Amino acid sequence: MVRLDFTIELKYEIAEAPADFVFNIHAARTASQAVVSESLTFNQPVEPDLYVEPATASRFMRVRAEPGEFLVRYAATVDIDHHRESPARLAEVPIAQVPATVLPYVYPSRYCQSDRLRRYANREFGHLRPGYWRVQAIHDWVRLRTVFTSGSSNSHTSAVDTLIDQVGVCRDFAHLMIALCRAVNIPARFVTGIDYGAPPELGPPDFHAYVEVYLGTRWYAFDPTGITAPMGLVRIGTGRDAADVAFATMFGSMRSHAPLIWIAARDDPAAGFTLPSHSAEALSTSDEGLACSGCDNMGGRE
Amino acid sequence: MVRLDFTIELKYEIAEAPADFVFNIHAARTASQAVVSESLTFNQPVEPDLYVEPATASRFMRVRAEPGEFLVRYAATVDIDHHRESPARLAEVPIAQVPATVLPYVYPSRYCQSDRLRRYANREFGHLRPGYWRVQAIHDWVRLRTVFTSGSSNSHTSAVDTLIDQVGVCRDFAHLMIALCRAVNIPARFVTGIDYGAPPELGPPDFHAYVEVYLGTRWYAFDPTGITAPMGLVRIGTGRDAADVAFATMFGSMRSHAPLIWIAARDDPAAGFTLPSHSAEALSTSDEGLACSGCDNMGGRE
Amino acid sequence: MVRLDFTIELKYEIAEAPADFVFNIHAARTASQAVVSESLTFNQPVEPDLYVEPATASRFMRVRAEPGEFLVRYAATVDIDHHRESPARLAEVPIAQVPATVLPYVYPSRYCQSDRLRRYANREFGHLRPGYWRVQAIHDWVRLRTVFTSGSSNSHTSAVDTLIDQVGVCRDFAHLMIALCRAVNIPARFVTGIDYGAPPELGPPDFHAYVEVYLGTRWYAFDPTGITAPMGLVRIGTGRDAADVAFATMFGSMRSHAPLIWIAARDDPAAGFTLPSHSAEALSTSDEGLACSGCDNMGGRE
Amino acid sequence: MVRLDFTIELKYEIAEAPADFVFNIHAARTASQAVVSESLTFNQPVEPDLYVEPATASRFMRVRAEPGEFLVRYAATVDIDHHRESPARLAEVPIAQVPATVLPYVYPSRYCQSDRLRRYANREFGHLRPGYWRVQAIHDWVRLRTVFTSGSSNSHTSAVDTLIDQVGVCRDFAHLMIALCRAVNIPARFVTGIDYGAPPELGPPDFHAYVEVYLGTRWYAFDPTGITAPMGLVRIGTGRDAADVAFATMFGSMRSHAPLIWIAARDDPAAGFTLPSHSAEALSTSDEGLACSGCDNMGGRE
Repeated sequence: MVRLDFTIELKYEIAEAPADFVFNIHAARTASQAVVSESLTFNQPVEPDLYVEPATASRFMRVRAEPGEFLVRYAATVDIDHHRESPARLAEVPIAQVPATVLPYVYPSRYCQSDRLRRYANREFGHLRPGYWRVQAIHDWVRLRTVFTSGSSNSHTSAVDTLIDQVGVCRDFAHLMIALCRAVNIPARFVTGIDYGAPPELGPPDFHAYVEVYLGTRWYAFDPTGITAPMGLVRIGTGRDAADVAFATMFGSMRSHAPLIWIAARDDPAAGFTLPSHSAEALSTSDEGLACSGCDNMGGRE
Repeated sequence: MVRLDFTIELKYEIAEAPADFVFNIHAARTASQAVVSESLTFNQPVEPDLYVEPATASRFMRVRAEPGEFLVRYAATVDIDHHRESPARLAEVPIAQVPATVLPYVYPSRYCQSDRLRRYANREFGHLRPGYWRVQAIHDWVRLRTVFTSGSSNSHTSAVDTLIDQVGVCRDFAHLMIALCRAVNIPARFVTGIDYGAPPELGPPDFHAYVEVYLGTRWYAFDPTGITAPMGLVRIGTGRDAADVAFATMFGSMRSHAPLIWIAARDDPAAGFTLPSHSAEALSTSDEGLACSGCDNMGGRE
Repeated sequence: MVRLDFTIELKYEIAEAPADFVFNIHAARTASQAVVSESLTFNQPVEPDLYVEPATASRFMRVRAEPGEFLVRYAATVDIDHHRESPARLAEVPIAQVPATVLPYVYPSRYCQSDRLRRYANREFGHLRPGYWRVQAIHDWVRLRTVFTSGSSNSHTSAVDTLIDQVGVCRDFAHLMIALCRAVNIPARFVTGIDYGAPPELGPPDFHAYVEVYLGTRWYAFDPTGITAPMGLVRIGTGRDAADVAFATMFGSMRSHAPLIWIAARDDPAAGFTLPSHSAEALSTSDEGLACSGCDNMGGRE
Repeated sequence: MVRLDFTIELKYEIAEAPADFVFNIHAARTASQAVVSESLTFNQPVEPDLYVEPATASRFMRVRAEPGEFLVRYAATVDIDHHRESPARLAEVPIAQVPATVLPYVYPSRYCQSDRLRRYANREFGHLRPGYWRVQAIHDWVRLRTVFTSGSSNSHTSAVDTLIDQVGVCRDFAHLMIALCRAVNIPARFVTGIDYGAPPELGPPDFHAYVEVYLGTRWYAFDPTGITAPMGLVRIGTGRDAADVAFATMFGSMRSHAPLIWIAARDDPAAGFTLPSHSAEALSTSDEGLACSGCDNMGGRE
C-alpha cells in the first residue's frame, strides 16, 4: 500500500466582477484509492458546489468568488492499494468484448485525434503482437521521440502537433500516447495527478498527467514522460483528455498564479506503507466495477 | 405532435475476416420522443449487443459480422411531442447555475475547438445581449457564412477548418455553431437525425446533424444549415460532437455503400399528427429530467 | 539522349466575364533540355504574354480569354541530355558553400514547412552519413510510408499533413520529401513534368511533380512516388513548391476539365535516342550555369 | 527626405562546432533609399560573403563563426526619399496587367496561405470597390481584430492561425494582411525594418515587419500593427513572407540573445531632413524600375 500526503494551493487575482471556477483538485475516491482525510479552505466565504461524475469518480467543485485575491487550499491523505498484474498476462480486449462504458475511450477527442493517426499508428504498431507489450512499445516510442521541455506547448497543443514537433510537457506526452493507442483500437484515457518522484531539476512539484490503458479487465497506468513511477500517482481527474479534467476552468477576468504543490509518501513498512518505486508489474487503481458497470447493459437484447 | 416513419438501410462488403461495428441508428427514447414501433433486420444471423448511454439516451448497437455482404435495416415510427417556448423567455444560464451534467458541453471536443475560438467568438458575439437571440445570431452567422457543398469536407474536418474554409456539410455547420456557442460559455451539443424536409436537389434523404443549445432549463434544437425545420428532426444520437455519435463505427476491412434512407411525416390532424413546419417558437425534445439528473448531485455539499 | 514528344490539351468553360490565366505548360529550355519544336494553339484569338523566370527557366504564359469554351493545346518535342553521376561521388554541400541562388531552397515554403520538421527529420535522418545516400534514404522513407491514392488530398494539403496522413498524390510525395530534405539543411525544390512511364492502372498520362535536390554542383532528380523513371521526366516548371508552378492559375468564374495529355519517347538508338529507363546513376538536367549564376556574386566583398 | 541612423547588435554563444549564419540586416539600396554610410564589425576574424538578391535588393550576408561568443554589429545611416501619392489615385492592377515579376506575390507562401482564405477574404472584402481604400480596409480589419501581444506566437505561426487566434506580433499582423490581400488577387509582400516610433511600452527598439502592396505602378507601405508611421520604416529585407527574410538564419548549436537596436531620425529641416510622421498620402520606396524589370519580358511573344 502507498500513502501519499499532498497539498495544493491555488491563487487568483480576480478583477472587477465575480468569477466562476470549476476545479478538479479533489482526490478521487475509488475502490483502490481511499481518501483517508482531506481539507479544503478558501480565503473568501464561498459556497462550493461539489459534483462527482459517476462514470469516472472525478470530483468537480464549482465556486463563485468575489473580486480580489482568491486562495484555494486543498490537502489530502490518500491510500492507494494497487492491483498488480504480470504484463505477460494482460491481453488487449477485442472490440467485440470491450465493455460499453469503455468503448468511448477508443474514439478521438479534442487533443487526441486518433482518427487522423490510423495509418500512422498502424504502420508503426500494427504489426506488433497485441497485448501489454504493444502498449509498452507505444509508450516507449512516445517517450523516446518526445523531448520534455517546459513552456514548449500551450493549451491548444494536440497529439498531432506533438507527433510532428517532438516536444512537449506531460499532457502532450499523454495525449500522444492516448491518440496512438486509440488509433490501433486500444481504449486509452487521460488521468491527472501530481508528479511525485519527478527529478527536482524539472522544477517544484506540479500537477501531472498520465495515461490509463484498458487491458484484460482493468485500466492500467502508464507515464510516457518517464519522470514518475506509476506507483506514486494519485488519481484526481479521469477523462478523455485534458479538456475533461482541467484542474481549474476559469470564467471571468483574472490573473492566475502558478499552483504551489507539496507531496510526500509515507515510508512506514511496519504500518504497511512502502515508498512508490518502479515496478516490473502492471499497476491498476481502476475499480473493477467501474469498468464493468456497463457490462450489465451489454450482452442482453435490451 | 409529429409522427415520423423512417427506414435506414446500410450495406457493407466485408473482406476476409469478421468485422465489428458500433451502430447508432436506433431512435432515442426520451420523455418527448416515443418509439411507437421499430424493427431491425440483418441478412446474417448476428447477435447484436445493445447499450443505452444513460446520460444521453443514445442507443448503441455492437455487431460482429462475417465476411461477405452485410445488410442492416432499421425501421421505426416515432412520435415527438415538442416542448415549445417563446424565444423571448429563454435566457442563457450563468455558469454558476448550469447543471453539472450540462457543464461538460461547454468544454472543447474533437471537432469543436472552442478553446481556440474564445477571442474570435467574443469579438463577434460577446457584445450581444445574452439569451436566445444571441444563439440565433450565432446560428445565422454560421448559416450565412458557410456554403453547403457535398463532398467539401471529410471525417477530419473541424470547426476551425470550417470557419476558415466557409464550406461544409451538415456536421460541419453543426460543429462550427457548437464551437462558437461554447466559446462564449453557452453549452451546446451535437445531435444526429435524418434530414426530413431537405430540398430534393441536395439528394435523397440522408443522415443529418443538428445542434442543441442549453437555454433556460432545457436543450433547444437549431439547424444551422437551414435545410430542415427543427420540428421534423428525429433524435438518434446525442453527444459532444460527431466523434461520439457516428451512425457507424467500423473495425475491420470492408467496403461501405451510401446509406439508403426513407422518411415521411404523418399528416393526420384528426389523429393529432401535424406535418413539421418552421416555427417561430423554440423547440425542445430534451427531457427535463435529463438536464437535471445532475441537479440532485449539485447544490449539496457532497 | 532522350527524346520526348508530348501534347497537353486544356479545356475550360468560362462564365459571363473574361477570365485570366497564368499557365506554366511550356517545356523549359535549359542547357540539358532542348526544345526541338513546339506549337501552341487556342480556339480563341487570344494574345498570350510569355515570360521566362530567369532563375528557374520556368516559362509562364498569361492569357485573357472570353466567355465560352476555351481550349489550349501545347505540343512539344524535347531532347534531354542528362548529366550522369555516380551516387557515391555526390556529396551534400555545406551551408557555407551552397551557392547564394540555391540557398532559398533550404527555407520553408507554403507546402513544405521544413521549419516544423527539424526535430522530426533530424531524428530520422540526422544520424545518417551526409550525401546522396542520405537523400535516397529520405526518398525511400517517403515512398514507403505514403500510399498513392488519387483524390486523397487537395490544393491545401501540405507536407505536414502528408506525413501524418500517409496518403497523397505526386505533389504530396514531392512536398514531403522536399520538406524533410530542407529540415536537415539539404536544398530541395519542386519540378513539374509529365508522368511518362507511370503504370496505366493509375489512369491516363497526367501532369507529374517530382523533386530536385542539390548535391555536388548540380540539382539531381528524384521521384519519391516511384511511378516514373527520372530519365523520362521532362522539365516544365521549377519552383519552391506547387504554389510557384501550378500548370494553370485561374482568375475568374469558370469550369475546368481534366487535362488531356499524351507523351511518347523515341526509341531510335541509331539516331541516338534511347528509351528512358531506371538508372543506378544520379541524373541531372539542371544547368551548371543556373546553379552557379549566383556564385559570381558570392565570395566577393560586395 | 527622412534620414535614419540605426545600429543593430547581435550576440550568440556558439557551442562546440563552428556555426553558419545567414544574416539579412543590411539596409537595402534602392532608388528611394540611399545608404549614406554603414559599418559592420565582428568580434571574430570572420570572412562574410555578401549577396544581393537582384529582384528585391535584399542583402544577405553568410558568415561562419567559431565556437564561443560571436558578436555582430551593423550601423548605417540611410536617406529615404518617399514617392508620395494621393490614395484616391491608386488603383488595383488587373491580373492581366500585373508585371510578371510582381505576379508571384499573388501566390500563397509559407506563412500566408491565401489559397485557404479565398472564400473568407471575398466575403469580407470582395464587395468593396477595388483600389487603395480596399487595401486600407483590409489593413484596418487586421488591426482591429488582432491584439498585439509579445510572446503570443512563434516561428511556426501562420496567417490562418492569426486569423483564428486574433493575437500576434508584427510579423503575424503582416502575414495576415498579406494573405488576405493575395486572397482577393492583390499582390502583397513582406518587408523587414525597425520599429521606429513604436510606443516605448512595447519595449526597446526591435526589428519590425510590415507590408507592401502593389498599387498603380509601385509597392506602397502599410503597417497593420499601427505602431509605427510608414514614413519611418527603413527597408532591410523584402520577400514573400518571413521565411525569405529572417534577420538571422542559424545553422549549428548555439544560444542567441535578443538583438539590441538603436534608431533615431534626424530632425534638420534646413538640411532637408524631417521627422517621420503619419501621412494621409500613400508612401512608396520601391523602385519604379524594380517593379517593371519584368515588363521588358512581357508583352512580347518571347
